[in-house]
Amino acid sequence: MNNYPKESAGKKATLNVPTCHSKDSIKEVRTKIIENSNNIETFNYVYVLNDEKKLKGVFSIKKLFSKKDNLLAEEIMDKNIVFVHPYTDQEKVAVLAIKNNIKAVPVIKKDGTFLGVVPSDKILDILHQEHTEDILLSAGIYKKDHFSEKMIDTPAKTLAKIRLPWLIIGLFGGIAAAQIITYFESTLSEKIILASFIPLILYISNAVAIQTQTLYIRNLAINSFAQKDYLLKELKISVIIGIVLSLILFLISIIAYKDFIIATIISVSILLTIATAILMAMAITWGLFKMKLDPALGSGPFGTIIADITSLLIYFFVASTFLSYYI
Amino acid sequence: MNNYPKESAGKKATLNVPTCHSKDSIKEVRTKIIENSNNIETFNYVYVLNDEKKLKGVFSIKKLFSKKDNLLAEEIMDKNIVFVHPYTDQEKVAVLAIKNNIKAVPVIKKDGTFLGVVPSDKILDILHQEHTEDILLSAGIYKKDHFSEKMIDTPAKTLAKIRLPWLIIGLFGGIAAAQIITYFESTLSEKIILASFIPLILYISNAVAIQTQTLYIRNLAINSFAQKDYLLKELKISVIIGIVLSLILFLISIIAYKDFIIATIISVSILLTIATAILMAMAITWGLFKMKLDPALGSGPFGTIIADITSLLIYFFVASTFLSYYI
Repeated sequence: MNNYPKESAGKKATLNVPTCHSKDSIKEVRTKIIENSNNIETFNYVYVLNDEKKLKGVFSIKKLFSKKDNLLAEEIMDKNIVFVHPYTDQEKVAVLAIKNNIKAVPVIKKDGTFLGVVPSDKILDILHQEHTEDILLSAGIYKKDHFSEKMIDTPAKTLAKIRLPWLIIGLFGGIAAAQIITYFESTLSEKIILASFIPLILYISNAVAIQTQTLYIRNLAINSFAQKDYLLKELKISVIIGIVLSLILFLISIIAYKDFIIATIISVSILLTIATAILMAMAITWGLFKMKLDPALGSGPFGTIIADITSLLIYFFVASTFLSYYI
Repeated sequence: MNNYPKESAGKKATLNVPTCHSKDSIKEVRTKIIENSNNIETFNYVYVLNDEKKLKGVFSIKKLFSKKDNLLAEEIMDKNIVFVHPYTDQEKVAVLAIKNNIKAVPVIKKDGTFLGVVPSDKILDILHQEHTEDILLSAGIYKKDHFSEKMIDTPAKTLAKIRLPWLIIGLFGGIAAAQIITYFESTLSEKIILASFIPLILYISNAVAIQTQTLYIRNLAINSFAQKDYLLKELKISVIIGIVLSLILFLISIIAYKDFIIATIISVSILLTIATAILMAMAITWGLFKMKLDPALGSGPFGTIIADITSLLIYFFVASTFLSYYI
């Protein structure tokens, strides 16, 4: 076991793979592999090293069978190596393997020294583990190793315990939301119809926030890009989505309730909550990412509560402003 | 290309793997592999077939290097084969590979005929694809092949189009919710404080529904179990969660609002909405599963809208009943 962080490429790498020297002939490589075969864990590629144990190239096991005995490793190896550094996050290793269609990913130090290979079965494990973590986290379930796949064998009490923490936090979020609405009671009693649109405002702001977070998390995990460009793109999206939804809403509410002020309040609120939801979803995700916390946390109950409270504040602020102005 | 369904094991299998006859010697197997190496795609295991092309066993490429030349394939092969049938869903293939810690999964017909192998890189692709699908689906994003990973290159208009459909459906859901609340306007005007708890009721019922669906989907995908036992377990969980949350809520609201009726209405409503949310989440997931639709659909906006509307109906029904009785 080495000392690299738990979910790093270095931690997941094994040295039990076929290696050879760049000046070895195919025949010599074959003999070496036969001699060492009991220590070899994964047989997809042969890694070609130089005297300083630096990785110079790689060739597939296939070539060991198909190439002439007297060819040298350096003559048949591929020099365009896809690799990671030991501190690379395990999720990126998996993504790299998928993108490049390779079965195992070599790990090398900054100076080129070969540290081993993350083999295909480990990559599968990583993907599965990350998937499960993301899903449980965003469903607001306090995670425990793989319990979710054996639910039928887990006692109801244990399962309730895993689910309660976020629900209780949510409960207090809901109570905070109730305080906000109570604060605007006079606005509400002027136009009680305003209460009817609370679910819609909450639904849309949450839905937009979840979409934003989901896409942003995946992009952060996989690509590198200028944050400014991404923010700009999301702002454009928020303008399009906001205008489309608030227009539909304005038309429907003016037809259904024949109340211009109510229609205006609702559509202006939706426009503002969409823009705010997108900005906040990005800020929360980015913050968690920078703090090295799992950004999937933000797409869960935590993000929902913050989005709920902010949207209600916007909605009632817009409502009280318009009502005081018009009435 | 074969005619198996798109996401089946049969469709993802390749025949370009090392195979041999059970009576072949190790030396003969090695020669065969060298001759065919250009047609071989994946080198993890050698699959041992009999005269009728039925799979009798499997051994690792490692043994090809380490075992004596004159041993027969049938002497060194492992007869406990992990395999799938051609119609097995691709997600199950991936799960099986992870559970059994194998790099590739052979596909055989009911009569034992060898159809090929789902190789490790395909398994990785499958996991990644299923992961992406689940996440986008439950975030209410109309999926398109892997667009989410190249967002920075996708125009804002396209991205808005992908996100709008579910938002518009949600908008109509919100309007339906508004109709329900408007219908209970007289109840609401009696105790305007009831409006304050709308976000809390919605939040808790949604959170419980998402937890239930997430766990149930994973269990359906991976295990087999008696539906009755699972339902019973969820009911027990709903009782525990329901009692804990409604007790907390009762205490807080009686302290904060000093109104026994309001405290009772809210805690009874929470108890009922939790039980209903769990039952409905299970029913929707089960229904989608039986209709061969992706159950992840239910954990998205679709499930949320139904949960919202049902919870509001329960809440206002409880409220109007209690109010008409007590006042």
